[in-house]
Amino acid sequence: MPSDASGINPRFSKKTFLRPDPESLIQGILNGDITALSRGITYIESSKEEDQPGKHKIIQAILPHAGKSLRIGITGIPGAGKSTLIEALGLELISQGHKVAVLAVDPSSQLSKGSILGDKTRMEQLSRHPNAYIRPTPSAGSMGGVARHTREAMLLCEACGFDIILVETVGVGQSETAVHSMTDLFLLLAIPGTGDELQGIKRGIMEMADLIFINKADIFPEKVRLTQQQLENALHFFPPHASGQPVQVLTGSALQQPTIAELCRYILNHAKLIRDSGYFESQRKEQAMWWFKETLDQEILKRFYQQNKYTKIVYELRQEVMLGKIDPFQAVDLIMKEWK
Amino acid sequence: MPSDASGINPRFSKKTFLRPDPESLIQGILNGDITALSRGITYIESSKEEDQPGKHKIIQAILPHAGKSLRIGITGIPGAGKSTLIEALGLELISQGHKVAVLAVDPSSQLSKGSILGDKTRMEQLSRHPNAYIRPTPSAGSMGGVARHTREAMLLCEACGFDIILVETVGVGQSETAVHSMTDLFLLLAIPGTGDELQGIKRGIMEMADLIFINKADIFPEKVRLTQQQLENALHFFPPHASGQPVQVLTGSALQQPTIAELCRYILNHAKLIRDSGYFESQRKEQAMWWFKETLDQEILKRFYQQNKYTKIVYELRQEVMLGKIDPFQAVDLIMKEWK
Repeated sequence: MPSDASGINPRFSKKTFLRPDPESLIQGILNGDITALSRGITYIESSKEEDQPGKHKIIQAILPHAGKSLRIGITGIPGAGKSTLIEALGLELISQGHKVAVLAVDPSSQLSKGSILGDKTRMEQLSRHPNAYIRPTPSAGSMGGVARHTREAMLLCEACGFDIILVETVGVGQSETAVHSMTDLFLLLAIPGTGDELQGIKRGIMEMADLIFINKADIFPEKVRLTQQQLENALHFFPPHASGQPVQVLTGSALQQPTIAELCRYILNHAKLIRDSGYFESQRKEQAMWWFKETLDQEILKRFYQQNKYTKIVYELRQEVMLGKIDPFQAVDLIMKEWK
Repeated sequence: MPSDASGINPRFSKKTFLRPDPESLIQGILNGDITALSRGITYIESSKEEDQPGKHKIIQAILPHAGKSLRIGITGIPGAGKSTLIEALGLELISQGHKVAVLAVDPSSQLSKGSILGDKTRMEQLSRHPNAYIRPTPSAGSMGGVARHTREAMLLCEACGFDIILVETVGVGQSETAVHSMTDLFLLLAIPGTGDELQGIKRGIMEMADLIFINKADIFPEKVRLTQQQLENALHFFPPHASGQPVQVLTGSALQQPTIAELCRYILNHAKLIRDSGYFESQRKEQAMWWFKETLDQEILKRFYQQNKYTKIVYELRQEVMLGKIDPFQAVDLIMKEWK
């Protein structure tokens, strides 16, 4: 029998294990219990209808204890050394007395599940540290879903006592807008090379960055200065960052402790500056409003398009627009008239 | 009596003048009658309920005769010399046998109505030419409304025989996304200066451009080469343009015919290349789908938010999100549950 073979007592079914009591989870999380944190995050990732009241209960209960961390988004093309940097930065922050949680927003990495495992293996020292918590990519499908789960997981980590949250994303998809909208500071990781070689950086990402760090400066020393200059020049074509702080281009290596310590100092100082200027608080509020508006709009539209009678007319008129038989604005007028 | 004083026969009321017969407008437009074109554009700009059937009739009738022009978007910060360039480019294109219409998408210029008049005055030669048609900014309020009217005015111009449409926008607002989404080729006008001086260029605009023209090269010759280099370097940080064509940075002066002739050659050659590659057609289709989706989404959301009972709960929960009393996702869940 499978239940005997697995050694699991049949009385504790999988269902019971996956859906523990919200009250005990809340208590566990607020007491800094990592197991409760992991189970809590799994709970809020559930899309099952019967889990929604419990999920709501957990979020509402931990909300007053959340929000006190510094949230750092980290992006960069594959090969830029994100995992190595996150491990080094995490350990440095822990050595200064912080508790560090690492989350990921990258639905695409589900396709190559290896990368998640790879990260955990590469962040070996950090993942074993009692003051660190590493959570792999949530398993929900859509970008919106993943972003929501990551943002909620962040709240749970904060309530559990983590005061620095590192949110990782591969800088080639659509996920960096989401990460930018849930973090206080956005770090772009680059490697030495000319603009052409850096083209993998997706449009808009450079404009989001609070800070650019050129990694692997030890391997390609001759290219570093040139890359730094080119990035600084390119930054001049963008409007000043909303934070009011200039965007710095730092260089170094994730493998060399002095540059990591410098990066760390820079990040914590930047956080202090934006806290003092009030930008930190105002950005947090704006982000909450952005998620509210964005999610509400998406839900309204989803419900509209799910209603069959509109789907049919929308589908037909969409075809006519595509074939150039009707002007798009006229087509919309007809749909909205039908919907009266 | 005012009607006598104005010399207008009271039988032809203002109402009759503003709302002519759609049939006669259609015939006039298809016959290349500029007066019918102007009246037709005014007609389709109407937001009055009783004008909608006539508007629909006009658009549907001219649609098979529209779409055959080359649509060129032109943007640049104030002072870059847009009007001068448009006049010079327009006259050059006319000298080669084209018919040129100039439209504007810039709702902000309504605030300083002078700029529209100013443009007309500055484009004196072009506006007097029988093969040119200059239409000032539509008077609708919202960006979406203005963009819609400009796109529809474009169709009418095409049906009236204009085979080149120049759509102007001030590159500092949100209008350039709209212009980019209704043109085949997007030209960014810059002036010599360092990146810092060019910061007025809004984010994202450089990535939209098919072509950058550094104007006023005759006034600032020493800065031109440097600006060109810096722009070329900055372009390297962007992904290749969707058209598959490299983005060129040309230099010259709108006041010197040889550079205008060269710019003209470049534009017409680019148009030929993207027609041959199929990008022209596929972009047109994508644009139509984009306007359809975008407009439909906006209309659906507008209707939702206009419904009072949702407005109240949305307003209240929005406040709670702002005060950090509820998580944005939880707030949306509550609203959508209410809406069942």
